[in-house]
Amino acid sequence: MTGLKNDRFLRALLRQPIDCTPVWMMRQAGRYLPEYRELRKRAGDFMDLCKTPELACEATLQPLARYELDAAILFSDILTIPDAMGLGLYFTPGVGPQFSNPITSAADITKLGVPDPETELRYVCDAVTMVRDALQGHVPLIGFSGSPWTLATYMVEGGPSKNFSKVKSLMYSDPQSLHALLGLLAEAVTIYLNAQIASGAQAVMVFDTWGGVLTPYDYQDFSLNYMSQIVNDLTWEHEGRRVPVTLFTKNGGQWLEAIADSGCDCIGLDWTIDIAEARARVGDQVTLQGNMDPCVLYASPQRIREEVEAILDSFGPGVGHVFNLGHGILPDIPPENVEVFISAVHELSTIYHQYD
Amino acid sequence: MTGLKNDRFLRALLRQPIDCTPVWMMRQAGRYLPEYRELRKRAGDFMDLCKTPELACEATLQPLARYELDAAILFSDILTIPDAMGLGLYFTPGVGPQFSNPITSAADITKLGVPDPETELRYVCDAVTMVRDALQGHVPLIGFSGSPWTLATYMVEGGPSKNFSKVKSLMYSDPQSLHALLGLLAEAVTIYLNAQIASGAQAVMVFDTWGGVLTPYDYQDFSLNYMSQIVNDLTWEHEGRRVPVTLFTKNGGQWLEAIADSGCDCIGLDWTIDIAEARARVGDQVTLQGNMDPCVLYASPQRIREEVEAILDSFGPGVGHVFNLGHGILPDIPPENVEVFISAVHELSTIYHQYD
Repeated sequence: MTGLKNDRFLRALLRQPIDCTPVWMMRQAGRYLPEYRELRKRAGDFMDLCKTPELACEATLQPLARYELDAAILFSDILTIPDAMGLGLYFTPGVGPQFSNPITSAADITKLGVPDPETELRYVCDAVTMVRDALQGHVPLIGFSGSPWTLATYMVEGGPSKNFSKVKSLMYSDPQSLHALLGLLAEAVTIYLNAQIASGAQAVMVFDTWGGVLTPYDYQDFSLNYMSQIVNDLTWEHEGRRVPVTLFTKNGGQWLEAIADSGCDCIGLDWTIDIAEARARVGDQVTLQGNMDPCVLYASPQRIREEVEAILDSFGPGVGHVFNLGHGILPDIPPENVEVFISAVHELSTIYHQYD
Repeated sequence: MTGLKNDRFLRALLRQPIDCTPVWMMRQAGRYLPEYRELRKRAGDFMDLCKTPELACEATLQPLARYELDAAILFSDILTIPDAMGLGLYFTPGVGPQFSNPITSAADITKLGVPDPETELRYVCDAVTMVRDALQGHVPLIGFSGSPWTLATYMVEGGPSKNFSKVKSLMYSDPQSLHALLGLLAEAVTIYLNAQIASGAQAVMVFDTWGGVLTPYDYQDFSLNYMSQIVNDLTWEHEGRRVPVTLFTKNGGQWLEAIADSGCDCIGLDWTIDIAEARARVGDQVTLQGNMDPCVLYASPQRIREEVEAILDSFGPGVGHVFNLGHGILPDIPPENVEVFISAVHELSTIYHQYD
């Protein structure tokens, strides 16, 4: 793939032969890195950092300076779209993301519009362009968004939720209004990801953090259908290359067949499923990304290597695996353990890629 | 079954023919009931209510006075064992259960002993006896405990947790110490549940609220193995009747075969699995309990009935289903919706129980 010094990640997403298994980490630019905490202090709050392309670019590149990662992921948040819709995203330490103007009625939904990525989300596109320039083809850059359902949960709950009472009340008592919201969000996510692709993102990922709190029917109806719509409407090719799309539903292990049928290139897995089982179920159709428990990174170097080995061995030889954690890296993980993890994936995976 | 006016629940657990599907609700004695909130005010804090047998008995009976429930479940908490071990259980509104003396080192584990149900947990046994007397054979009484793994998560984290960093750190860096703790807890849970059975509990249930945050291997190793041990060591028969045992692992839908192999009589299901699929996988071996999303109870009477109908239809005709929610009822559910739910299960299920 012309212009890329390391195309392992894109090749793995397209199920092509590679020398070893590529690896990156969800939230790889983040609080476990002292240089990130330093940058955060300079930037002000989390959204200032996201909204200043120079700083978002710097954060994106930090983990790549330390580790042999096979992909960069834009430093941003899954909730930029509702923020651009006027809901006012802010972060409270110990609580998480919150909205100052959450959706409190069906009427609120009718007032929302699709944000223009050229204006309201310009800062994201600018950061993408800047990171691409800075990367100089070192590794590919991943763009992303939250899934429509996941965005809707935060927009209706107003922040993180334990039981999702408000959004599920809406779902069970006024499904039409929720479908109207999800349809709008699917359109917004599509336009937003296509703008990231146009700005230089070489792969995209949709984070469905909360799809796993639904029944199988409601997951299909209120989450997966809208992600499928997005997959279908995304820019298929850019700069002469396929732009692969990954769908990640946390706690979605029971629905892999349905997710694979969306037409996505890759499914993100959390650690509650054996990757051998996932491969047996959908591995002919899609690449699998995952799936080490982030808490393994608290353990000794030897234990980390054992777990990497176990997952590589479980997936087995052949194409179609991107190594990752099953969820974002935690803020108190020792950075030196990440080094052990990344090296272990590269070193221990070569024997699974003997093609002749 | 002699002495019981309504034995639907016990018959369903033992996969015997019945006239309609029995139903009860996790947390059926709780905050959604105005009479419970009144009782709580009189009692003082939550643990005072649990620890005063007369009041715990009153709370247990409250939902039965309102609804045609097919079982009573002792009003208590899943964390009574660690409290009796000296960890000091208390509840903070908006936070949940916490321990004033959590486990902070492997050395702390070696100091713990198995509580004597005749003394430290006497209040639970007394409440069981009192409820049995008061019920006068109206419906059977369920006793319960948290699972060893779930107890351990709270004991090591000190309270609710988002990522289970502390207990998983222990698991990955010092598995021997965690196994020592879990072995002790399995022994304590067994003795505790057997004491509840001796006091009059006619069925028992083990709540594994947090088993679903583990990998398949760690679930087997650190949660299910200890629950299997408990199932194996429980009093098999009391008062001339089988005492059936239900295991409920939240987010355990991927591991039903392994859970069924524990020897339990019944598996509790959350709503993330279609009960038809669960039945196809393990329904010849065990009864299934569940599995309506508690949030459906926010909806209209018509929508509630539709969902009940859908679940009954999904399970289909025949023995082996206890209707329940997939998790505890939420505090802001309108009590009149519960009436709709309970009646719907009884009315709509009769056609699935035509045996001839």
